[in-house]
Amino acid sequence: MSSLDSLIQDLVIANRILAREDVVDAYGHVSVRHPDNRHRFLIARSLAPDLVEPGDIVELDLDGQPVRDDGQKLYLERFIHAAIFAKRPDVMAVVHAHAEDTLPFTIAAATKLRPVIHAGSFIGAEVPVWDIADRFGDTNLLVTNLEQARDLATCLGPNSVALMRGHGFASAARSLIEVVRLSVYLPRNARALMRAKQLGGEIKYLSEGEIAARNRGYSPYSVETWRTWEYWANKAGCSHLLTRPDEPPAGTS
Amino acid sequence: MSSLDSLIQDLVIANRILAREDVVDAYGHVSVRHPDNRHRFLIARSLAPDLVEPGDIVELDLDGQPVRDDGQKLYLERFIHAAIFAKRPDVMAVVHAHAEDTLPFTIAAATKLRPVIHAGSFIGAEVPVWDIADRFGDTNLLVTNLEQARDLATCLGPNSVALMRGHGFASAARSLIEVVRLSVYLPRNARALMRAKQLGGEIKYLSEGEIAARNRGYSPYSVETWRTWEYWANKAGCSHLLTRPDEPPAGTS
Amino acid sequence: MSSLDSLIQDLVIANRILAREDVVDAYGHVSVRHPDNRHRFLIARSLAPDLVEPGDIVELDLDGQPVRDDGQKLYLERFIHAAIFAKRPDVMAVVHAHAEDTLPFTIAAATKLRPVIHAGSFIGAEVPVWDIADRFGDTNLLVTNLEQARDLATCLGPNSVALMRGHGFASAARSLIEVVRLSVYLPRNARALMRAKQLGGEIKYLSEGEIAARNRGYSPYSVETWRTWEYWANKAGCSHLLTRPDEPPAGTS
Amino acid sequence: MSSLDSLIQDLVIANRILAREDVVDAYGHVSVRHPDNRHRFLIARSLAPDLVEPGDIVELDLDGQPVRDDGQKLYLERFIHAAIFAKRPDVMAVVHAHAEDTLPFTIAAATKLRPVIHAGSFIGAEVPVWDIADRFGDTNLLVTNLEQARDLATCLGPNSVALMRGHGFASAARSLIEVVRLSVYLPRNARALMRAKQLGGEIKYLSEGEIAARNRGYSPYSVETWRTWEYWANKAGCSHLLTRPDEPPAGTS
Repeated sequence: MSSLDSLIQDLVIANRILAREDVVDAYGHVSVRHPDNRHRFLIARSLAPDLVEPGDIVELDLDGQPVRDDGQKLYLERFIHAAIFAKRPDVMAVVHAHAEDTLPFTIAAATKLRPVIHAGSFIGAEVPVWDIADRFGDTNLLVTNLEQARDLATCLGPNSVALMRGHGFASAARSLIEVVRLSVYLPRNARALMRAKQLGGEIKYLSEGEIAARNRGYSPYSVETWRTWEYWANKAGCSHLLTRPDEPPAGTS
Repeated sequence: MSSLDSLIQDLVIANRILAREDVVDAYGHVSVRHPDNRHRFLIARSLAPDLVEPGDIVELDLDGQPVRDDGQKLYLERFIHAAIFAKRPDVMAVVHAHAEDTLPFTIAAATKLRPVIHAGSFIGAEVPVWDIADRFGDTNLLVTNLEQARDLATCLGPNSVALMRGHGFASAARSLIEVVRLSVYLPRNARALMRAKQLGGEIKYLSEGEIAARNRGYSPYSVETWRTWEYWANKAGCSHLLTRPDEPPAGTS
Repeated sequence: MSSLDSLIQDLVIANRILAREDVVDAYGHVSVRHPDNRHRFLIARSLAPDLVEPGDIVELDLDGQPVRDDGQKLYLERFIHAAIFAKRPDVMAVVHAHAEDTLPFTIAAATKLRPVIHAGSFIGAEVPVWDIADRFGDTNLLVTNLEQARDLATCLGPNSVALMRGHGFASAARSLIEVVRLSVYLPRNARALMRAKQLGGEIKYLSEGEIAARNRGYSPYSVETWRTWEYWANKAGCSHLLTRPDEPPAGTS
Repeated sequence: MSSLDSLIQDLVIANRILAREDVVDAYGHVSVRHPDNRHRFLIARSLAPDLVEPGDIVELDLDGQPVRDDGQKLYLERFIHAAIFAKRPDVMAVVHAHAEDTLPFTIAAATKLRPVIHAGSFIGAEVPVWDIADRFGDTNLLVTNLEQARDLATCLGPNSVALMRGHGFASAARSLIEVVRLSVYLPRNARALMRAKQLGGEIKYLSEGEIAARNRGYSPYSVETWRTWEYWANKAGCSHLLTRPDEPPAGTS
């Protein structure tokens, strides 16, 4: 299989996992930068992620326009992906979603979402909250053009996640597996923090040093990362699409 | 297929989706105005929504009486639908349900349910709470006659949702797809607000302008609306009943 | 089918429904008074309710002893059922379970569990909390003999539900369908009340008059009651065991 | 079947149950001491617990090293098991997991996790919280060597569970069935306590005497314990792997 075909299968798996793990419903999407052309990215046509098949993947440029316009309906908010890929050369994959337990942190201004559990470390020490109303006034809250998307990407800055007020989040990472993992553990970290707040008293957040240590140790194709990808693909009923990456060298597990 | 047969299939899908998404259990129902006679509506006979088939759909008039009385048992609370269709010519579809996470807002008088997430905008800026005891004293809380139902419809007024104290809600919209969508996102919006309240501090609600902007942009058969209808029908195991509406014109997606 | 065989099938359905609706796990049990002998009741042998088949039903007397001792292992806490059937001639069916969302109300002494939603009305205006330690000191909290069970039954008094501190609840009703319904809606009512408390402000409970009105209107074999029994049996995968009761007279639906 | 083969099947069942009951996801693991050699234990190779088959079980020594090195990838945190088996001769089985509802108690320092429900008694009167940062500073929070694992085992002391700050827990028991049961009820007890705290007022914890009484009465192969093991194995889809232990003597049920 070509590396492009393999990546497309991975993108299908990512769609299905995000649906199965309740990160997306009919809305929300995941994209990956084109392996051969940094100025393009792959994403599904307008379709619920749970129903995405390899033939539903389209190729867009960094203005969010289709490379081959064959009349497919596209996600209204595809500009989010375009703007983040344009502004962040280090980013290889992007998710936008409305995962329910991230929402309270977008509307309760007093509590900042920060990592409290080790699996949440990849959201990073700083999770900015973007409010579309700050620059664009009363909108339908959707990011439907490049100008809005660039403003969101600016708010994201060098971070991994930006919350979007009353809407959801955008997350960005160095690989498809990493952005999926980040997006699955983001609401779990949010729940742990909400419940800890309810218990009251002082909260122990992950330290900056811990976040950095976890980040340094992360490898998208380690045995540990693969383990959860394989598990989630099985749960999502698409393990037949798994393509095993090259084995990592012994001793790194 | 005739447009009536097609609408009946849509109504079956609506029943199944509301069951699968935990908006209804054995109780709760959804109706649609008759396409050829504004003074009638379609609704299932007395049956759990998850078990409804096309042959279970009956036709009632705006007094809640069957057009053809073939001895079918009917929902006790069908008057809710009758009264709303009578009072609101703009309304084409109605849901009554007990979705669990709407209930706290019907009994905790101090907190008003308002839209905090974009998908919750369709509940509208104002969600009145109707208490059957205010006019009817000690009842079994069920809306079992036209007088009670008309009082509820009056409380609903021009809004999209009325909460019913200790009981649930009634929602009304311009199409079957819209009323289902509204009814699914209503408890999600409620959960987001409950959890934001627990986090504390100031809550950012959707502004009136945002609610209006979303409402203006809504089209019941847009690509985006269809996407979630198709997704939910698949989850509910009734995608075989889907009848694709006419394609919307290009450029509206 | 004989009425005994039919009742045994209903008891199997009750077991499966309680498992499917998360009222019981491997623990918890449901019983019904013998239709031909008021001094006996039917209950499963020691087995997880989800796995119960008609052949697993045994007949016990009001001392909790098997009528035919064929060496079957019995539930340790069967005495709960025996004592309630002995003390309450009006009761035809009993459930004991540990449904998770009832537990907080057994250990947080300050908040009384009371009906706040219409479907919760059958728990009654008064839900006493029984603490085994009050009379029996440090035990394993299980009700393992008649003396303890009679103390619990005394605490239950004329009510429908007694909470059991750090343990769960016992519920009693006039029919199998009613005790199942009561036991399923008990934790839902508990959740609605917990969440309303979190929202804060004054809580509107069902009035005594509303509880009485609902109780007066209840009929275990009405169309509405059957609807939920049929629905739950379908969800629990045992609709093939349903035996339709005599049709209620027209006009009562 | 040999007792070793039978134990391996039990270990597979334990893996599947912990996955099905949401105690583990792709991460987390369960081990059992080798029946013929107290200085070894059995655990899966690096694999999501839900996917574990008998052929995936490996044998490690109390330094966490494989007895037969056939190049299998191993769990990074296997040292947790090694150190607990080494320090605690009474312990026959160990679980390490990240069950979500235990996490708030690891980061909200003010609230101690203690048994409030009877099924939670086995967590013991004292549940210490281990913070890897106390001795090891900024790490990735994973227990990746014997020194860290021994520190955790020291913190565990004679108790059944140690919480791990921002990470999860380690639990230890006298049998595989017991450690699974303990690990399933640990988050349930945590939820009951969290919700009771939200209700407010005084909380009734299990007394020391009650914890002791339950512990004295516990038998890993009693009818009651088997009942839940059988139930969970059925739910997890692996009842075909069940090997019934010797029947307990009559009268102990």
